[in-house]
Amino acid sequence: MVGYKFMGKAHSHAYRDLPFYFDCDVEPVLQAVVGRDEEGVRAAAEKMGFATYETDWKRLIERDDIDLIDIVTPNNTHAEIAIAAAEAGKHILCEKPLALTLEDAQRMYNAVKKNNVVHMICHNYRFAPAIQFAKKLIQEGRLGKIYHMRAQYLQDWIMDPKFPSVWRLKKEVTGSGALGDIAAHSIDMARFLVGEFEEVTGMMETFIKERPVADSSGGLSAKSDSTIMEEVDVDDASAFLVRFENGAMGVFEATRFAGGNRNGNRFEINGSKGSIRWDMESMNNLEVYFADDESGIQGFRNITCTEEQHPFAGAYWPAGHIIGYEHTFINLMTELMKGVSERNSPSPNFEDGIRNQEILAAIEKSVETRGWVNVKQMRLVENV
Amino acid sequence: MVGYKFMGKAHSHAYRDLPFYFDCDVEPVLQAVVGRDEEGVRAAAEKMGFATYETDWKRLIERDDIDLIDIVTPNNTHAEIAIAAAEAGKHILCEKPLALTLEDAQRMYNAVKKNNVVHMICHNYRFAPAIQFAKKLIQEGRLGKIYHMRAQYLQDWIMDPKFPSVWRLKKEVTGSGALGDIAAHSIDMARFLVGEFEEVTGMMETFIKERPVADSSGGLSAKSDSTIMEEVDVDDASAFLVRFENGAMGVFEATRFAGGNRNGNRFEINGSKGSIRWDMESMNNLEVYFADDESGIQGFRNITCTEEQHPFAGAYWPAGHIIGYEHTFINLMTELMKGVSERNSPSPNFEDGIRNQEILAAIEKSVETRGWVNVKQMRLVENV
Amino acid sequence: MVGYKFMGKAHSHAYRDLPFYFDCDVEPVLQAVVGRDEEGVRAAAEKMGFATYETDWKRLIERDDIDLIDIVTPNNTHAEIAIAAAEAGKHILCEKPLALTLEDAQRMYNAVKKNNVVHMICHNYRFAPAIQFAKKLIQEGRLGKIYHMRAQYLQDWIMDPKFPSVWRLKKEVTGSGALGDIAAHSIDMARFLVGEFEEVTGMMETFIKERPVADSSGGLSAKSDSTIMEEVDVDDASAFLVRFENGAMGVFEATRFAGGNRNGNRFEINGSKGSIRWDMESMNNLEVYFADDESGIQGFRNITCTEEQHPFAGAYWPAGHIIGYEHTFINLMTELMKGVSERNSPSPNFEDGIRNQEILAAIEKSVETRGWVNVKQMRLVENV
Amino acid sequence: MVGYKFMGKAHSHAYRDLPFYFDCDVEPVLQAVVGRDEEGVRAAAEKMGFATYETDWKRLIERDDIDLIDIVTPNNTHAEIAIAAAEAGKHILCEKPLALTLEDAQRMYNAVKKNNVVHMICHNYRFAPAIQFAKKLIQEGRLGKIYHMRAQYLQDWIMDPKFPSVWRLKKEVTGSGALGDIAAHSIDMARFLVGEFEEVTGMMETFIKERPVADSSGGLSAKSDSTIMEEVDVDDASAFLVRFENGAMGVFEATRFAGGNRNGNRFEINGSKGSIRWDMESMNNLEVYFADDESGIQGFRNITCTEEQHPFAGAYWPAGHIIGYEHTFINLMTELMKGVSERNSPSPNFEDGIRNQEILAAIEKSVETRGWVNVKQMRLVENV
Repeated sequence: MVGYKFMGKAHSHAYRDLPFYFDCDVEPVLQAVVGRDEEGVRAAAEKMGFATYETDWKRLIERDDIDLIDIVTPNNTHAEIAIAAAEAGKHILCEKPLALTLEDAQRMYNAVKKNNVVHMICHNYRFAPAIQFAKKLIQEGRLGKIYHMRAQYLQDWIMDPKFPSVWRLKKEVTGSGALGDIAAHSIDMARFLVGEFEEVTGMMETFIKERPVADSSGGLSAKSDSTIMEEVDVDDASAFLVRFENGAMGVFEATRFAGGNRNGNRFEINGSKGSIRWDMESMNNLEVYFADDESGIQGFRNITCTEEQHPFAGAYWPAGHIIGYEHTFINLMTELMKGVSERNSPSPNFEDGIRNQEILAAIEKSVETRGWVNVKQMRLVENV
Repeated sequence: MVGYKFMGKAHSHAYRDLPFYFDCDVEPVLQAVVGRDEEGVRAAAEKMGFATYETDWKRLIERDDIDLIDIVTPNNTHAEIAIAAAEAGKHILCEKPLALTLEDAQRMYNAVKKNNVVHMICHNYRFAPAIQFAKKLIQEGRLGKIYHMRAQYLQDWIMDPKFPSVWRLKKEVTGSGALGDIAAHSIDMARFLVGEFEEVTGMMETFIKERPVADSSGGLSAKSDSTIMEEVDVDDASAFLVRFENGAMGVFEATRFAGGNRNGNRFEINGSKGSIRWDMESMNNLEVYFADDESGIQGFRNITCTEEQHPFAGAYWPAGHIIGYEHTFINLMTELMKGVSERNSPSPNFEDGIRNQEILAAIEKSVETRGWVNVKQMRLVENV
Repeated sequence: MVGYKFMGKAHSHAYRDLPFYFDCDVEPVLQAVVGRDEEGVRAAAEKMGFATYETDWKRLIERDDIDLIDIVTPNNTHAEIAIAAAEAGKHILCEKPLALTLEDAQRMYNAVKKNNVVHMICHNYRFAPAIQFAKKLIQEGRLGKIYHMRAQYLQDWIMDPKFPSVWRLKKEVTGSGALGDIAAHSIDMARFLVGEFEEVTGMMETFIKERPVADSSGGLSAKSDSTIMEEVDVDDASAFLVRFENGAMGVFEATRFAGGNRNGNRFEINGSKGSIRWDMESMNNLEVYFADDESGIQGFRNITCTEEQHPFAGAYWPAGHIIGYEHTFINLMTELMKGVSERNSPSPNFEDGIRNQEILAAIEKSVETRGWVNVKQMRLVENV
Repeated sequence: MVGYKFMGKAHSHAYRDLPFYFDCDVEPVLQAVVGRDEEGVRAAAEKMGFATYETDWKRLIERDDIDLIDIVTPNNTHAEIAIAAAEAGKHILCEKPLALTLEDAQRMYNAVKKNNVVHMICHNYRFAPAIQFAKKLIQEGRLGKIYHMRAQYLQDWIMDPKFPSVWRLKKEVTGSGALGDIAAHSIDMARFLVGEFEEVTGMMETFIKERPVADSSGGLSAKSDSTIMEEVDVDDASAFLVRFENGAMGVFEATRFAGGNRNGNRFEINGSKGSIRWDMESMNNLEVYFADDESGIQGFRNITCTEEQHPFAGAYWPAGHIIGYEHTFINLMTELMKGVSERNSPSPNFEDGIRNQEILAAIEKSVETRGWVNVKQMRLVENV
């Protein structure tokens, strides 16, 4: 694993915990973790249970005892690491978004295809049992033809103007702000549940234009007493309208300025036969409405997706005993292990990553051109 | 009152009930109701408690015992009636939207200004005590600088493809579909709570392109066994992005195709110091978040706005004893009576109606031009 | 109508509003209101729309133009007025509880039976459309055999120790505190939905033992600057366990000391085939669970009971447009008008009042004896 | 660890996962698991990560490499194992309830005291961060004097009459049904948050009197095709009223017959200054009401207890990223490790277990005597 902060913690925990709940043909072994700060990475290795550590990710590429490389570093480093890993025949799990640019993403995809390694991108939210169950309902036609998806990803962790300019607020490191960090998750959810995007038009805002230089940058909390200010060059908030290929309408919003919403990742989908609602902060619940329920007793059902019938849920606890954020990673890693075992790349993989990145690029372009952008037109020639 | 169907019922009830709860200098008297179908209007007059009825609205204009004309007819008739009423010196309450076109709306506004009559437009939802209280919190700066408004008005009454093409689905009668009928309410809410719109870009969809001819057309329910089909030329759903003059972002959606949402008129507003959430289906409640609440005990408060401190609520029942949809009209009519008494036109009045219509027009234009439209550019020269 | 404070307002409004929504063979006419304070009652008569007023309730008994007497006075006066009214052949609506003692209640019942007048007791909450619909589901067997009812009626209006000793806190006027005032409503709900009570055991508490003398005593709010203290001799809170005749278990609690619960009248019922939940503060909603829903999509449905299929709801507004507290009275008065027209006494009537009072008496006895009390044993010999 | 079914899974997972999140001076090592069925226990050992397994729990007592014995077997075996463990100087974690009888519980307590071993009982729910935070609020006086606790523990897993008579339904193995299994948790919560019980009166019901013999008995799900029926001699549901020593009133109910409630462990506490509400199915949230909040903006706050300020929560994920059922065990085990390290027995320990058992015994006695039972009178002489 390359990196060991917030996502490093989530990933390494998932690998550790996975064999307890699931039986996989291939089991993850925490062989090595990489970080540039030797003191930090040594402590992390010990804490998280890695057998060894390295201070240069290139060492991982060289090591024969490494089959899978998990990339949880800032976004601007994904491409180089992933391509090197692929060329060394290592399987890859990469944090989202795939890269800073569509071009880089494409190069990464080319590399994994050419070298025939297993690849996934870590859109973990679709692995909540409620979401997997929603997918099943939609596939079975229980919602009918989809008319609408409205999705919001609302956070509030940088509302304080004194919150420093951490790496997630720097374009050269992160690519974009709320858009690439959290809207990307909603886009993945939409592609998973509704289908491909045809065209988009969007807007982006940066409410706080400059912030104090960061002292430290762990996870989603940080402090700075610095009086030196830096420009913020990524979006605090993004919103966009979508026309899906199947004719559905999409309304999306992602922001880090929605006070009171700590991690409000939510959506509603309406189809001709039914509707669903979901909110990550109550991630075990799926609200479902069926238009063909008997007249008079129609209403959204609040289903606690903790039963045998709900994908992945049966591996955990009895009905009504809820699971949390970390289990979305465990479920995803289970699919990854299956992929490694069967030598295929379960969705979401790098192809999904490129599709996602095309949409992000189209939204950014629509902001520039102040008009609708067809997503397919973003596609690089080599990939058409 | 001209018209006596769904809105006629809501308005006449409000006039009847108003004096029971509020003491106004001027009290409404249900003098006459107008409808073209004599049998229908006679029954309505009796049922609703009007002293007399007429089959031609022009008779109301002529009658000396009529001080106020309330227009609850389909949208294409508003302009002619309102202008005639204004010229006859009658005060006017007009259902929203003001007119089919901005030009007509402007003529209506000119007429009421020239003739110095009291005028209001019936955006009733802002008269829920929770909304009036939200306004007060915002005015006092309790939410700080506003960053976001996201508003949805979700209904599902025409999802059945066999639902007939009633007047609300015909452009020549109604102007637009979900946009003018329900998004117009969200726009009024936004103007009331956040401020003026600077620019918009939107999308509109008609999911069911043709429907059976209507047999009858009362309220929001109808049936048709007809095999003759008519084209639907208004939007089933609309969505738009907004940049407010004060820099806030807006994300709006209105649809009649959101299964399970009977009258889901909802929004959330986020400011630098706090946030609010509201849903018409739980209209007595306002959820409020304050960023300066003590750390650890921050969270949305669920306030039941039924107390003395909540505008209009004190006139009704003790705390926790809820009121409903009809009370939004009673509250609005109370303002109207005060306006008549004091010879001014409380907001929302025809000027608000024009502002609203400008926004609707800008959205429709943005759909055509597939780009952002500055709302002020829609303004007719005479009104600049 | 005798009395004109909180309940007087609720009742007179209902009579006024009823003909607007419902067509009854008999229509209420607000002929006269009675109060001892002439100034007060004159103002009330004008405000509420009564044609005349009286300062002595006995005048109502004598007047030939009075067909129905509605008793909304403090509980200690119900018996005398009701018996006189019955003997004069007047129909009667009486506020709950029927009387201070079971003996008085029995005398009232004897009087209405002997004089063959129509009688009802004002347990309004069972007239929420959601409750009437719940009754229908239960009657149709949709919940199966009932196992459980848990009901809470939680208020907080007297938590301030400085809140004065108004009449609702004096045993000689009111009979009991939370028990007779609000638990009585839960008991009525239980009898309506689950069935008759077999035995009970309970507890009662008075948290604030003395309070300042009251200056005024309108509705549920009052203030006193008095330094003279009076003992509180009624319960602030009561709780009791119930065994129903059909074998179901009941757990009930009523309190005026549940901070944050303004009018939290709620319950859940569980049967072998399904469950329901209801809360007066969201009175339009009924949550319903069906055990025979397909596995995996089982969950409580949130039904907004505002549709044609929901009793009484069709008379009001389209689906999703909610009604409030006052409509429970309108619905009840509609039943009363039907009763007057057909010369029968719709439930809840004085017989229900006696059943309710027997249960209240049994609970009070169980508190004294510190053991279970069979409800039937409370029944007066003449009524067995 | 002795036993390896549902609780065995929860406990062993917690030991494994604990070091990842928390730094303890003493770290758990999964040394050995015990089960009578060799095949089953071998598979369990491998799956859960135990180094060895035994088929006789007495072997654990003898082994020198065992410092702590965790007892997750059926209730009738707790006493013998715990006493033997204590006498061998092993620290002990025991599943609740401590024993079948108060006498056995007392002997267990005597043994751990005499041998000076660390002991805890596994009431895990009080280790939800929201509950620990509630405790802090109460200790700080933020709720004032406590007036009320109402607690429900509602499940529905045995409603099907064909669900077999598993060990949890047999008195000789389990002691009692819903009472000891789930009401015991609510009692622990009450003792933790409100204080000691003074007196109780209760009722118990067995709705399904006989059930098919069990084929298997894992966790909370089971099936049987047997036509041989067995009597059910434990309660399906229990309810009881409580007078706390501090004067508060308690209303408790536990049932396995509340359809739609999979694991509905909930309560509300009302004090003179504030109220709290909690529901295990949304275990990260605590609803808090403060009576001294500014008038007009009073309402229950929905606090997602996932922040640094919330006990234990800081060890997991950023704010808004929820945790689940299993984390209540991890948190408890963290306290246990601290206890082992410091040689004391953190609450809840065997003393809490005895207190809890006294209350259960008092409730059972009150059912027999049909009256109130003073809890202290249950106390065995040796422990007074």
